[in-house]
Amino acid sequence: MEPLVLYVLDLASGAAPDLALRRVPARETVLTATDLSATRGDGVFETVLVVDGTPQALEEHLDRFARSAALLDLPDPRRDLWRHAVLTAAAELGTLRPRAAIKFVLSRGDEAGDGAGTGWLLGFAPSAPPAAPPAPIDVVLLDRGYRHDVAQTSPWLLQGAKTLSYAVNMAALREARRRGAQDVVFVSSDGFVLEGPTSTLIVRIDGGYLTPPPDLGILPGTTQADVFAALRGWGEQVATRRLTVPDLLGADAVWLCSSTRGAAAVRSIDGTEFAVDDVLTERLRDHLDARRK
Amino acid sequence: MEPLVLYVLDLASGAAPDLALRRVPARETVLTATDLSATRGDGVFETVLVVDGTPQALEEHLDRFARSAALLDLPDPRRDLWRHAVLTAAAELGTLRPRAAIKFVLSRGDEAGDGAGTGWLLGFAPSAPPAAPPAPIDVVLLDRGYRHDVAQTSPWLLQGAKTLSYAVNMAALREARRRGAQDVVFVSSDGFVLEGPTSTLIVRIDGGYLTPPPDLGILPGTTQADVFAALRGWGEQVATRRLTVPDLLGADAVWLCSSTRGAAAVRSIDGTEFAVDDVLTERLRDHLDARRK
Repeated sequence: MEPLVLYVLDLASGAAPDLALRRVPARETVLTATDLSATRGDGVFETVLVVDGTPQALEEHLDRFARSAALLDLPDPRRDLWRHAVLTAAAELGTLRPRAAIKFVLSRGDEAGDGAGTGWLLGFAPSAPPAAPPAPIDVVLLDRGYRHDVAQTSPWLLQGAKTLSYAVNMAALREARRRGAQDVVFVSSDGFVLEGPTSTLIVRIDGGYLTPPPDLGILPGTTQADVFAALRGWGEQVATRRLTVPDLLGADAVWLCSSTRGAAAVRSIDGTEFAVDDVLTERLRDHLDARRK
Repeated sequence: MEPLVLYVLDLASGAAPDLALRRVPARETVLTATDLSATRGDGVFETVLVVDGTPQALEEHLDRFARSAALLDLPDPRRDLWRHAVLTAAAELGTLRPRAAIKFVLSRGDEAGDGAGTGWLLGFAPSAPPAAPPAPIDVVLLDRGYRHDVAQTSPWLLQGAKTLSYAVNMAALREARRRGAQDVVFVSSDGFVLEGPTSTLIVRIDGGYLTPPPDLGILPGTTQADVFAALRGWGEQVATRRLTVPDLLGADAVWLCSSTRGAAAVRSIDGTEFAVDDVLTERLRDHLDARRK
């Protein structure tokens, strides 16, 4: 991962978007040791793919960003400001790389701050160009520890928010690597299939395409939404439905979707192998790459 | 909270402790936008009380720091280096305030870094002197969402590690304030009483003092350990034992222990009132304040 461009936002002054954006060298230190992002993982973020200078599914990412902020009782992000910031950083990235990504972050701010929060955007690209086409991945199932309904019963657990407190997600990916796999699908303590640590699940069962519903305390996937829109346009059946582990292991084919990786085909889950539909995976990649909004 | 002194550690070079410590202005920006503390809450920390320049229970904090790092697969913290750093910062704090605290932090480091991690220590003091004696607190019970045994079954959930991913702990404290309380005791999804978001629970039942065991995926409390040592010295019965919600609500008296607040007496839990033992609470405060290691 190579940092390319960095912008820090002025969230306190209410300035016009083009005046609230400060460009700084990408590797410069910009956070205090008392920023609540660093001391408490107390903030939210989004990562958006940038193709030829255009951020993909930006409005959907801004929607989810606002939803995450509300779940954490953070100030409502000024949509005009964040949109302008992402578009500015994306235009600059477009002059540097054909494919890149922007992570944008809102933290609760400095512990001794004014409550307006800290905001920044980092544009980055993979240090090495990705393999084309990417290899199908091996996945393990890991317990997320929560019942499927905690987002409703216990909102302070912040399930369904894309927070900076991702140590568990990172630990799950390390556990996957220890088991010889590359990724994870989380399962609720009562047996429902959820999502990956940084991805959304799509399965094909009996010819139809399914993804688990956000009311399980999972993130609504921006890439998964675009994949479903494409599949629908191609005449396929798509639906949002709860899935159990036996449902998943009995599926015809499985993908993990994320902004930076697109729709990644899954080769195995806990050793159960799946057919890899190269034709559809490639068609989805072409479709996602051709998005221009 | 007023930042007073800040030191950044050189974790990469293997330099001698006194050469690996860099003093910087306490409000200076020291972290990149790609530090994994800020982007993933991926790191561990300790907060130690400093009285007259002496850090309290330092070796116990260093033990727990190393345990947390191991649970996160972080590099084993160099004990000589961290001890030296805390003692250096504490000595300086002692010239500024009679009572202060040091938070010391190890993150996984910059996303594009060398794997050695980022380390820093912040010395701080309350902006206003605390009320003396502090008022007893009102507490609410909140579901932590996990079974009591996930630390054993699902170590990737990092229960029992003091991580930087504390957004849930902060959200729980906001929920307590919404309910008119000041603090929280977490309960496992199967009904065992755990700990506070930043504290350890002690209850008095039938004249004996009890605290829940760390195998429930909770932090071993450094202040609780010193309280138990004192109680034992005064001829009281102390024990580590699983407690249910009825056990807790039927207790004679309850305290929440933490480094910065000492043993805080609990006045009520979910509206159930407890006798406040002012004499013992004050005696414990005097005992904790008199520690000199």
